[in-house]
Formats: sequence, structure tokens, C-alpha cells
Amino acid sequence: MSISKRPQLDALPPVAGNGLIDRRALLGRGVMFASAAAAGVGSSVEAAAEPMVDGPWSNEVGAVIAPYQVASRFEKHVVRTVDNPDNVPRNSRARTPHHLLQGIITPNGLHFTICHGGVPDIDPDKHRLVIHGLVRRPLAFTLEALARYPMVSRIGFVECGGNSAPLFSNEPIQANVQALHGLASCSEWSGVLLSTLLEESGIDPKAKWIIAEGADSPRLHRSVPLRKGMEDAMVALYQNGERIQPGQGYPMRLWLPGYEGNMNVKYLRRLTLTEGPAMSYYEARTYSQVLPDGKAYQFYFLQEVKSFISSPSPGLTLKEPGYYEISGVAYSGTGRIAKVMVSADGGKSWGEAALQEPILPKAFTRFRMPWRWNGGPAVLQSRAWDEAGNVQPTRAEIIAHRGQTSRPPSVLAFPSQHYNGPTSWAIDSKGEVKHVYA
Amino acid sequence: MSISKRPQLDALPPVAGNGLIDRRALLGRGVMFASAAAAGVGSSVEAAAEPMVDGPWSNEVGAVIAPYQVASRFEKHVVRTVDNPDNVPRNSRARTPHHLLQGIITPNGLHFTICHGGVPDIDPDKHRLVIHGLVRRPLAFTLEALARYPMVSRIGFVECGGNSAPLFSNEPIQANVQALHGLASCSEWSGVLLSTLLEESGIDPKAKWIIAEGADSPRLHRSVPLRKGMEDAMVALYQNGERIQPGQGYPMRLWLPGYEGNMNVKYLRRLTLTEGPAMSYYEARTYSQVLPDGKAYQFYFLQEVKSFISSPSPGLTLKEPGYYEISGVAYSGTGRIAKVMVSADGGKSWGEAALQEPILPKAFTRFRMPWRWNGGPAVLQSRAWDEAGNVQPTRAEIIAHRGQTSRPPSVLAFPSQHYNGPTSWAIDSKGEVKHVYA
Repeated sequence: MSISKRPQLDALPPVAGNGLIDRRALLGRGVMFASAAAAGVGSSVEAAAEPMVDGPWSNEVGAVIAPYQVASRFEKHVVRTVDNPDNVPRNSRARTPHHLLQGIITPNGLHFTICHGGVPDIDPDKHRLVIHGLVRRPLAFTLEALARYPMVSRIGFVECGGNSAPLFSNEPIQANVQALHGLASCSEWSGVLLSTLLEESGIDPKAKWIIAEGADSPRLHRSVPLRKGMEDAMVALYQNGERIQPGQGYPMRLWLPGYEGNMNVKYLRRLTLTEGPAMSYYEARTYSQVLPDGKAYQFYFLQEVKSFISSPSPGLTLKEPGYYEISGVAYSGTGRIAKVMVSADGGKSWGEAALQEPILPKAFTRFRMPWRWNGGPAVLQSRAWDEAGNVQPTRAEIIAHRGQTSRPPSVLAFPSQHYNGPTSWAIDSKGEVKHVYA
Repeated sequence: MSISKRPQLDALPPVAGNGLIDRRALLGRGVMFASAAAAGVGSSVEAAAEPMVDGPWSNEVGAVIAPYQVASRFEKHVVRTVDNPDNVPRNSRARTPHHLLQGIITPNGLHFTICHGGVPDIDPDKHRLVIHGLVRRPLAFTLEALARYPMVSRIGFVECGGNSAPLFSNEPIQANVQALHGLASCSEWSGVLLSTLLEESGIDPKAKWIIAEGADSPRLHRSVPLRKGMEDAMVALYQNGERIQPGQGYPMRLWLPGYEGNMNVKYLRRLTLTEGPAMSYYEARTYSQVLPDGKAYQFYFLQEVKSFISSPSPGLTLKEPGYYEISGVAYSGTGRIAKVMVSADGGKSWGEAALQEPILPKAFTRFRMPWRWNGGPAVLQSRAWDEAGNVQPTRAEIIAHRGQTSRPPSVLAFPSQHYNGPTSWAIDSKGEVKHVYA
């Protein structure tokens, strides 16, 4: 098609209010983004100059190749935020910079981490995984022994139960997507199915729970229903192809697809089969949410269906009116994402986002929505559905049931856990993005 | 099932000669791997000792969390092999250590690299991508402009046309899988479809080729059929979520799913639409394979269906007879992998391997095959089929058509390109693995 005949973005029919365009515009065919009008990508595209101007890198020999390559020095800002840089005796968190990432795989350097006694330095040759308790035959596995068993690989997310805790605040906390939602990441995990190892030890019919314990100094331990252990749990040895990182449990972690992060015990050294749960610190205290009526959730394990927009988001200021792609991730501990709806007018109208293949169960799914910003106020939101028909509740529904707080939420205060409502980004006429409730 | 009633591996029916077991054994249910008999994982599994012995890491505070985490110090051997560590003026290669990896994602630090003038240090804010030539409107894109366009993500491989070149030698070169097949890797790439950008410039109907040029000092350039450019080519900006690595073309590369690595021009700075190809150095010389009859392949772009076993492989010595998982990767530039067959007796009999989901087009697919090594000689091979019905040719078929060489194959000598035959690993009674022709 000749360029003069191609439709301008202005001519494309809207799919919802305030500039949302039908997702078929993402195919790019028959759409002109860079136009003289303010509807496209505007001044970001330049007319090509001749002759090309060489950068200095085109006229000198480059650097030697490193055995293990690292990111460009121009990407030094793409890091996790570390909330305990002096390693004082308390929890430490490092959050994934979702606003700077694309796709569904979190690179290993940027996977979120929570440690309760720093990052242990474990010698893999001396580490053992013991399975005992209500089994026929207690066994101890070296890393070498585990590598002999049938291996599986699976792409999936891990999310801290306390991810998104700031959204329980009664005022929208001004922070970026990394600070609000950075305790969730997605990798390809490879390891041995826990069912294979449990059957190897022989399960006593009285066993109903597994107490999983780490080799870090807090000996963090959590109770896992045996049913989940037999369903899809993995003793993960690899993360995105290489051995798992120290922050994710080197040399091995328990991975319970879709269950809250803390249960995915890192530095896994012991699995004790029992009749009842351990009522350990983290399950009896931190991750048992007290409700407004004084009752509490017990064993609230599932990370429910959720989504957030990573771009635009706070810090990513829109330069000028025109075309933008709204993009983010959706995920559900129940299974696959079925649908993501996006609003640009604070929830008054919604358009269906495009979902990037592959759409995998209990994994991040990248969604994208084409948008023409007219330079006026906008409030961006996303809402996800999973294949079981679960939908993200509204913030009002969550607050009505769980309460809110007038101080910054903390993992040791309530409510702080399992927020899976929508996040609202308000855009002002300068293109600046703020966290709001809408 | 009580442990005493579970079948030993010995009792499972073989699916092919020399110990190959039906792939359903990988499910682990109803199979006992660790047994007193030599049929299981044997002495690698220990009886559990009580009480547990703490490592020192269980009794001290761990390290501070780093903003960008790196692998454990115990994984220092998991690196690429760099063949030009002094950066003398010639090509440099860094190869992926497949024997130490699992799954299908190659972590960014270990993705293979070939550079022809070192790794350039490009300032992304000063870099431009120009589209010109037979277009209606020449355009120059900043990185910021490209980020405004509709983005796509896709998991897929890149493979050098010269990967596996040692297998053209008339004698099997004694090297490991990293040295033989380390010039292929697989990532999740995110960026803008080239078709979106070409349509933005407006394609002159006379245009049939795209000359893609890099900003590295050799200005490496290759001719790409416009048809491929419109089909599934991408200007890739992200690799496994983060900005692409310096060795893969930071800040942007051309990605042509399934086409030989050299065409996937890194440091992409120019796309010139033309009526004919450029006949550049790499397409007219290095990657035009001369055949024994004096004719030559011209524009042999496709990386055809292929597979190799990464474990067991040279350097990974089998400790004792018993159960092992044979594992490797298969891929095809044509589409999805349909089937992988594995032999343990040098090709006399074959059993079908399990393919790990997700099976994605033009991406690595991990295959696995359960195997009971009896301690005697074995020759392991794999052979892959893609969804279009293409199958890996035998080495004899390739040699008959393409020739072989009595000196170590080199990228500047022929034959050296597009070897996609099987690889044979011989295992001796000590469990040592050697490269053989069988």
C-alpha cells in the first residue's frame, strides 16, 4: 500500500474511552504511527540524514568478549532496589524493576529476593536434601543424586504474599511499579518433581503435610499440603537455564507453582512428612492475615489472579501526546490468563488487551493495548481474568473485606498480604504518571 | 503404593536397545530409582542421618543482597569459552556451555557471541536506526522512538551457520558439546516487528531485498529477502526481559527467526531497501558453501532441523551403572519440533524421547529419554523431526553431498557451514564419554 493511502491512527475506531484503540492496531499493518499530526509517535521519529554519522564505536576496535557477559554500562540503572543495604539483622528485600523490563522472563540478575538472614553462601557439594518423617525410607540426596532423576522444566512466576502491600494504605502511596509490585518475577525453572522424590522415600498413608525447611540461618520452614507436593511441586535446581541464583535458594529451592513466595522454601535442606502442619512463625504469624472482624485467614496459600501496567508507569513520563503502547503483566496461581481488560478513563470504559503468546499456566502473561493519548488527563487500569473464571476484585471489594491502614503497610502489620486488586496510574497534562485510587 | 510393591526400574519394559526405557518412566510414578540393585541411581542416594549436620552457612548471617545478583562463587566454571581472549584483530567467539545448562532459556550471561571487531560500546542515546533506499520516506529512529511502537515478544533460537563445523572433520574431533555446538542459544526476544517499521517508511514496490548494516567497526552487513523482513523479522531491543547484551547487539539487533546467526545483524544501524542483494563479504564468501562439484550454495539462510544430546556428553563422566536421563535440545528454523528419537546403540534401534512443553516454533525444545546404563559400551545419538516433516540427515548423507575435510574445519574453509546431522557420544566401561562417528 502506498504511504499516502495508509490510514492515520486518527482514523482507527476507538474500542473504549479516552483513546484506547482496537488491539488489532498492534499488528501495525495499514497503520501509520509517525505522522505530522500529533496522533502518532510524533517528534520521536526523525527524517533520515545522509550521510550517516558514525559514532566513535564504529571507528575503533571493541572490547574483548567476557566469559560471562554483563549488561552495557549504559544500563547501570536497571537494578533491583535493596531495602537493607547495610544488612542489619532483619528481612532484606530486592525488587524487580518491572518498568524497565519487557516480555515474561525476568533475567536472573533482576529476580526479586527476600532473605531473612542475608544470602547464605552454600557449598553445593556439602549440601544435602533430606526426606524423612512419615516415610518408609528416609533418604538424603546430594545435588549429584538429584541430577540423576527425571528432570522437568516449567516457566512460572513466584510472588511474595506481601507484594503490592502498599495498596492497603488508605492514601495512594507515591511509588513506582518496582516499589509497589516488584516482589513478583517469572523464570524458567528446571528440577525434579517433588512427587518423584516423595515416592522414592515411600509415603506413609498417615502423612498429610510436608514441613519444608531451609539451610539459611533462620532455618525458615513452612508447611505444605502433601496434595500440593504431589500435584506440581518441584525441587528446582536451575533458573533460566543456569543453576539457581543465591537469592533464589542456591543450590536448590522448593517451587510450588502459584503459591505464596515464602512457602517456596529456599536453600531447601529438609522435607518432613507429618500428619499436621508445623504452625511455624511465617505461617502462624506473618502470612495469617487478620481480618477486620478479628478472625484470620489460616493457610491462605494461593496467589490469586492479578495484573498491573508496567508502562506507562510512575517515572516513565510521556513526552508528548500521541501513540503509546500500554503494557504490563498478568498472572494467576490458578492457571492461565484468559483475558485482560484495560481502561484509560479510570474504569468507566474498557477495551480488551492483546495477550502475547505463549500463554502458560501460573506464569506471567504480557498484555498490550494500543493507546492514543490526547494530552488530557487519563487514568490507566488493568483487570485480569483467569481460565477458571476468577477476576481481579476491585480495590473497594478488597478493602471492604480486609480493611485498610493509615500507616505505611508493613509485612508485620495487617492488612498487608495478598492484595490482588487493580492499580491505577493517573497521567496529567505534563505526561507525568502518579499512583492514584480510582 | 507401598514402597515394597513399587516396581524396580529393572522391571520396566525397554523401548529400544541397550537400556532405553519408555518415556513414561519420566513421570516417576510407580518407579523406584534408588534401589540396592545397580539399576537405579544407586550410591548417589544416601540413607538420611539424624540429627542433621549444619553447614557453617546455617549458623552465620549471610551476605548483603546485591542490586544485580550474580551466580554463586561455586559456579565460576559455568562460563562461555572465549577463543580470542587477547582480542587480536580477527573474529572472536564465545560458546554456550550446553552441558551445564537445563531447560530451553539460555541465560543472558551465557548466550553465544561472535564479534568481528570486538564488542562495541554504543551509547544508546546517540544510536540511530535508519530505514532508507527504496522507501517513500526515509526515517531515523531513536531508541526512544522505537519504544513507542507496538512491541512483540517471542522465545527463539539464534544459531551461527558455522555451529557444529567440527563435524565436517574426517576424524571425530575430541571436544565437548560446548566446543562442538556452543554457537546456538535461545532467548525470549522483545522488540518491534520489522514489518511495522518498513510500512512506516512505505515500501517502494521495486524493493526486493533489505541490506542490514551494523554500527560495529566492520560495519557488518547482510542481505535479507524483503519477504522474510515482512514475515517475522524483529528489531530486538530486549533479551530475556532486559535490554539486549553487548554481545548480542546492544542497543538493538535484527532478529530473523530461524535464519543463520550472521544475518541477525547486531548493533543494527541501517536498513537499505534495494532491488538486489549486496553480495557482501559474509554472504558472498564465508556463508556461501562450496560443494564438492565446484558449485556453491548461494543464500543458504535457513538453520535446518537439528538436535544434540547435552547430557551425558564429554566431560560428564557416568559414575556407575544405573539410571540416567539422556537430555538435549532440538530446534528447527522451519517451525516446531515434532519428534525426537534417541538411540543408545549407535543407531541400531530408537526410542521416542519426551518433549518438554512449551514446544515453540523456531525455539529450542528440551527432550528427555530415560536410560538404564548397564556399564557396557553405548553410543548415544538423537535425531529430530520438525512439524514440516523435515528430519536431520545422517552424517553420511551430509558428507556425500557436502564433503569433509582432513584439517580442523574453519569458518574460512569449506565445508564448515550448516552441519545439522546427528552427534554420537560413545560411553566406555569407565563411564567416560567420547565424540565418535557412528
